[in-house]
Amino acid sequence: MAQDWQQLNEQVTALLKTAREQVLAKMQSPLTVDEKTNRKDLVTNVDKSNEQFLIEQIHQIDPAARVLGEEGFGDTLQDLDGRVWIVDPIDGTMNFVKQRDNFAMMIGIYQDGVGQLGYIYDVMQDVLYHGGPALGGVFAGERRLKAPANIALADGLIGASGPLVVHDISHMQAIVHASAGMRVYGSAGIELINIMLGKTLGYISYLKPWDIAAGKVLLEALGCQVTTIDGQPLNMLSSNLVLVATEKAQRDILQIEEDDVSL
Amino acid sequence: MAQDWQQLNEQVTALLKTAREQVLAKMQSPLTVDEKTNRKDLVTNVDKSNEQFLIEQIHQIDPAARVLGEEGFGDTLQDLDGRVWIVDPIDGTMNFVKQRDNFAMMIGIYQDGVGQLGYIYDVMQDVLYHGGPALGGVFAGERRLKAPANIALADGLIGASGPLVVHDISHMQAIVHASAGMRVYGSAGIELINIMLGKTLGYISYLKPWDIAAGKVLLEALGCQVTTIDGQPLNMLSSNLVLVATEKAQRDILQIEEDDVSL
Repeated sequence: MAQDWQQLNEQVTALLKTAREQVLAKMQSPLTVDEKTNRKDLVTNVDKSNEQFLIEQIHQIDPAARVLGEEGFGDTLQDLDGRVWIVDPIDGTMNFVKQRDNFAMMIGIYQDGVGQLGYIYDVMQDVLYHGGPALGGVFAGERRLKAPANIALADGLIGASGPLVVHDISHMQAIVHASAGMRVYGSAGIELINIMLGKTLGYISYLKPWDIAAGKVLLEALGCQVTTIDGQPLNMLSSNLVLVATEKAQRDILQIEEDDVSL
Repeated sequence: MAQDWQQLNEQVTALLKTAREQVLAKMQSPLTVDEKTNRKDLVTNVDKSNEQFLIEQIHQIDPAARVLGEEGFGDTLQDLDGRVWIVDPIDGTMNFVKQRDNFAMMIGIYQDGVGQLGYIYDVMQDVLYHGGPALGGVFAGERRLKAPANIALADGLIGASGPLVVHDISHMQAIVHASAGMRVYGSAGIELINIMLGKTLGYISYLKPWDIAAGKVLLEALGCQVTTIDGQPLNMLSSNLVLVATEKAQRDILQIEEDDVSL
């Protein structure tokens, strides 16, 4: 089994490197940008073509597996039985469109509901964060990452999604106030990388399965907590208001929720 | 005169490179971190020693000039007559402490109140953004920067300071809502670099002179507007609620202020 996972990891790594080259090449031409649910929810020709490419290749690598993809080119899932790949071809599409930077490709591989491998590829920095239980650790490129320091909410910066703060959903403003400061980077993948590197102590956002599938595997393997904002397990088949944090910061945030603290 | 500015630019560039080496060396030892006005307003031994170093060297380079520095090692100014250097030894001290990344050194050089040269040094990326009227352009390292596209508020991302958004100061939430999205990077220098590169269309924050002196020179040289949130000229001897934006986005934001729009 370990042998199989190792081989699978090599195949996924090669696949993502190829996908990156294709994305960079497509960025040389004008993007086709469409709105999904509203003017801040974008999809481009590159999101679509990259998902199609990734899913085709995943079916070659792992014919028995099912694949869930953000743009709908994969399977429709009612459960997580067997092997399931969860794919976000371009995470942070708004950054991709407006900044041409600070976006990621993400893949999570689950076996009977248990996350085994996670991949977050910072495309412009060309660093592939990957690992999980099946690899016995988490790596930034070739470098093994240490677990981030288990710091309390007051002692670190917290990543947040802008709308949650503006609308003060689930005590977000009190949480931000209790932290050392808020940061907003605009891509779940980039936010999760920052937690892995200890640059922030957590991240709170309303996320779809493909936004958190890879990150859940990686962050849990680094000793962080990945739950709903109420401390409950995520439902990997639907949306969740996700709280990723160090153990101590999670406890502080759950206390704010429980005490119903307002700013 | 042009000859003098050119020579001055070479001296400042060399000075900042040396200062960067010293800061990187000091980051190898534990930092001494103190609170200034509150627990989110930090100063470290490196802020202080770097300001002392920069100001000593500036006096060598330009003996007749006066120097205004964040940490108080410079002169106390009542006016901007003659040549004035405005220095921020570490901009984004919270990021410096918590992230060891995403902070800047900044120097603005003013002649009788007119900004002539600006320097924002992204220390960890090792890119020195510099230029202004005295150099006839703005450069990232050796590369001349083009003016960012003059886009409207709805078409781009806006940088903001977290507390302004949380407390909805000066219609911040309505401004963010009208934009394509908010980003919070936690350092004026890094925010201003993002505008120079066209990654965001503007930035709104309560800033001291050293936070904006360099950026004002650079952004105005690139065709952006640098004013108070009400569109008035900055007072470079005191704090301002600063609005930096493309011309079009500035117009949109001033309209929101004038119409007193709430979210």
